[in-house]
Amino acid sequence: MHIAILTFDGFNELDSFIASVLLNRMRSKGWKASITCPSAQVTSMNGVTIQAEESLDFAAGADAVLIGSGVKTRDIARDKTLLGQIRLDPRRQLIGAQCSGTLLLAKLGLIGDCPACTDLTTKPWVIEAGVRVLEQPFHAEGTIATAGGCLASPYLAAWVLAKLGSEEDARAALHYVAPVGEKESYVAHAMAAIGQ
Amino acid sequence: MHIAILTFDGFNELDSFIASVLLNRMRSKGWKASITCPSAQVTSMNGVTIQAEESLDFAAGADAVLIGSGVKTRDIARDKTLLGQIRLDPRRQLIGAQCSGTLLLAKLGLIGDCPACTDLTTKPWVIEAGVRVLEQPFHAEGTIATAGGCLASPYLAAWVLAKLGSEEDARAALHYVAPVGEKESYVAHAMAAIGQ
Repeated sequence: MHIAILTFDGFNELDSFIASVLLNRMRSKGWKASITCPSAQVTSMNGVTIQAEESLDFAAGADAVLIGSGVKTRDIARDKTLLGQIRLDPRRQLIGAQCSGTLLLAKLGLIGDCPACTDLTTKPWVIEAGVRVLEQPFHAEGTIATAGGCLASPYLAAWVLAKLGSEEDARAALHYVAPVGEKESYVAHAMAAIGQ
Repeated sequence: MHIAILTFDGFNELDSFIASVLLNRMRSKGWKASITCPSAQVTSMNGVTIQAEESLDFAAGADAVLIGSGVKTRDIARDKTLLGQIRLDPRRQLIGAQCSGTLLLAKLGLIGDCPACTDLTTKPWVIEAGVRVLEQPFHAEGTIATAGGCLASPYLAAWVLAKLGSEEDARAALHYVAPVGEKESYVAHAMAAIGQ
């Protein structure tokens, strides 16, 4: 399985890397989640510069695509050239959006009439884009899922793991990242959040 | 406040970036948490290359130092030259270690007779270093704290925020990262974990 984690300039580190760490737990089974960017380097909202692992055209062929979040999402949402480079197909791909990534999902026309999750800051812009925003961390309908709040990222990753792998794969990755002494309760809570 | 997040080759992305995102919520109050590395670039355990924001000598002058985790910590623990470049002083600095970072904290002679937290993989090596390992996500004694499990990183960051800032600063940063719809319960849980 190839998974693209779309990561733009001004990105929120948690919203890209939490998903990356959970999904790459499956590397021994041949999965690879890759930080996928519109340029060779991007700089985070807190000033950390990272090198892209893949360019945006990788997303079109990926089995799953997660749209990360950041402080420049409203600019990206207005950039028709950049949006045009994100070619996704919910008939053959799982597509998820984290926090302000939901605004891009809406602008790409992929939410339709479904309600969605996003963070508290982005919420007004997602509503303005015509989407009903849920007061909950995670929501999925078919092959589209959205999550709100950085620490809802494990839920989005677990959904991909459960859909493209198995419930056991999702539980194992959540168990790995969970705090020591809270692992069983955390896994149960996260699996309940994604409706498993 | 200047905070060094020690980040080595093979680093676990969550163990450096979760702390970074929470602590940099205080940038408007003049704080800066910086990814601090022994080289100009480091590559994560999942293959993502990032640029260092500070070099190791920055840590000696920081108000707080958090030692991140990674897949090469056992090699670093044997590298006396590298360990010698990490000059910390618990009399004037807060010092925290995340997951395998606890092994470096032990090798630096900073744990003493105190028990500590670490991840399940590193646990045998921390025990071998003479430290009693706790089956819990977070433990602090005075100016030294340790955390185990990637998602215990918010607890370690919240401890720094509460000690160098205020309980309210810690609550605000935790609230920001928490999942939508779970924010109040998450903040209460995390504050209880750090004993506030």
